Amino acid sequence: LTEGTISTFGEHALLARVLARLPRPSPTVLVGPGDDAAVLAPVRNERLVVTTDAVVEGVHFSRAFSTPADIGHKALAVNLSDLAAMAATPRWVVLSLVLPGSWMVADVEDLVDGFAALAQRHAVSVVGGNIARTDGPLVVDVTAGGEVAPRRWLTRNGAAAGHEIYVSGTIGGAAAGLDMLQQGAGIRDRGSVCIARHLRPEPRVRLGTAMGRARAARAAMDLSDGLADALRQVAAASGVGVTVDAALLPIDECAREWWTSRRIDPVTAALKGGDDYELLFAVPAKGRAALRSARRHVSDPPLTKIGVFTKDPRALVIERAGSVDPLPEGFEHFANR
Amino acid sequence: LTEGTISTFGEHALLARVLARLPRPSPTVLVGPGDDAAVLAPVRNERLVVTTDAVVEGVHFSRAFSTPADIGHKALAVNLSDLAAMAATPRWVVLSLVLPGSWMVADVEDLVDGFAALAQRHAVSVVGGNIARTDGPLVVDVTAGGEVAPRRWLTRNGAAAGHEIYVSGTIGGAAAGLDMLQQGAGIRDRGSVCIARHLRPEPRVRLGTAMGRARAARAAMDLSDGLADALRQVAAASGVGVTVDAALLPIDECAREWWTSRRIDPVTAALKGGDDYELLFAVPAKGRAALRSARRHVSDPPLTKIGVFTKDPRALVIERAGSVDPLPEGFEHFANR
Repeated sequence: LTEGTISTFGEHALLARVLARLPRPSPTVLVGPGDDAAVLAPVRNERLVVTTDAVVEGVHFSRAFSTPADIGHKALAVNLSDLAAMAATPRWVVLSLVLPGSWMVADVEDLVDGFAALAQRHAVSVVGGNIARTDGPLVVDVTAGGEVAPRRWLTRNGAAAGHEIYVSGTIGGAAAGLDMLQQGAGIRDRGSVCIARHLRPEPRVRLGTAMGRARAARAAMDLSDGLADALRQVAAASGVGVTVDAALLPIDECAREWWTSRRIDPVTAALKGGDDYELLFAVPAKGRAALRSARRHVSDPPLTKIGVFTKDPRALVIERAGSVDPLPEGFEHFANR
Repeated sequence: LTEGTISTFGEHALLARVLARLPRPSPTVLVGPGDDAAVLAPVRNERLVVTTDAVVEGVHFSRAFSTPADIGHKALAVNLSDLAAMAATPRWVVLSLVLPGSWMVADVEDLVDGFAALAQRHAVSVVGGNIARTDGPLVVDVTAGGEVAPRRWLTRNGAAAGHEIYVSGTIGGAAAGLDMLQQGAGIRDRGSVCIARHLRPEPRVRLGTAMGRARAARAAMDLSDGLADALRQVAAASGVGVTVDAALLPIDECAREWWTSRRIDPVTAALKGGDDYELLFAVPAKGRAALRSARRHVSDPPLTKIGVFTKDPRALVIERAGSVDPLPEGFEHFANR
């Protein structure tokens, strides 16, 4: 019966299939999926943190490269990353599927499995969702909710001149991985670190919450639209400038090799490339003890100091081999595509 | 500058345009739209209620009939209706737009205005959102959050044999209105009650919360997919049967006239027709005092008793002029379309 397209299925039947694949919600979920809405018991005194993000076929992913499970994973990962950037612990999520009639029921199930596996790994309850049909491309729209203690969240506007800029993990890999796929790397070539980073981004949930709890940072943002974009956004929201040292950027080795072989500057590519779901932090120089405290709780991924926030909000620059250049523009989904 | 399509706009520029049109959030919104996520202060001791629902061009609306402001209104209304059916007070909403590149920026602004006007009328804060591009049809996906006191929410599974079935307002109008539009009624013919009901459904927020607070009902559901569907869903979830009296159905006068002129049975059409965002309640016979109490607080729309829940879950019937017929199947978005 899983052989067939969703057009041959009723809405209720498909919904039942999807619901059956979701992990059991946490005991704080008083009414789970299947009613008009879900009911949850919040943790006492915590603040509610909410974010929403959609992935669209042909814009954020291609079915030629991503399996249904990859798509489900990524749709959730990008939302968990937003919560992590606020230092919030993810608690619940709702999944809205807008499905082309030609999709196979088995593929919908795989998508839900990819989504549910990541949810379970982060103890996030899938509390509801929606299934709609479309004559266009697949859209997976997710809203995620989390909790954070009063005054422990991190925004984009808390950076000040003198704060050091830290970035988690490595950068540039996802963009290089996408380029590899577009240049003909096979979808089976998932062994490449760069391709894996494009297909299966890992949200830095534990790191984000540890940084907030330890008060180790004053501002944070995730790198969904690339490092250059994140630096520009935090600088603009905080009214400060940015100086980045190119030599300090933790660029993925596979990205460095790939762009060099393509005769493209790896530093610029890593700054502009989107889809690295790492975190950017503004850390006060006197806050290094708090930073070490956060690192004792969460040592992976590494954090790298890449520069400093500065006084002049017009000065967004990258230093490299003695020269000082303007920071590249960030990646925008609408423009130049 | 509002002349032009969204393709000519950057993502950030369009987002800034949208954010500028949103009403100021309530003081309980600690971090509003524009950061990685929103932060809210919940009302102490209340439970969190969450729902999500999408409207898709060509499936849930047609641009030939609906203005952008209609689409924005409806995308929010269907979600507020779900919260109302849980007896929850709506508090916040996130708006996810998946926009065809050909959409005019001015039309996006109109859509947001229609959305924001309804949000403001119900004191709902727009706390976040997302804008993505698509090569397919418009998708407006909304997640809404509300609050409800402990044990005062209403689900679908609380109906018992002997409970009376009440429905709010009038039914069948939206489906008749859609048919009028499809049969060639002009988009300007918005004076028709039926067409207005299709284009601008009014969620029964105050009625839903009043029924929950007064403990006047044991189960509730909204009529998004029609009365027959709602009756079947509540009956199935509660393990009961249904007997409806056709003579008691509060069918919109315009729908009755329209279907009669089209030689279609108005009762069947009203039972099957979707998009009436009225509420269905299961009211214990001994609960009429609580019902009157709820009605003293919210007298509009009227409530009409249309039948009773019965013991045998296999008996889903409608009585009419002495004969007893099976309840029609509900409306499904996937099937038969």
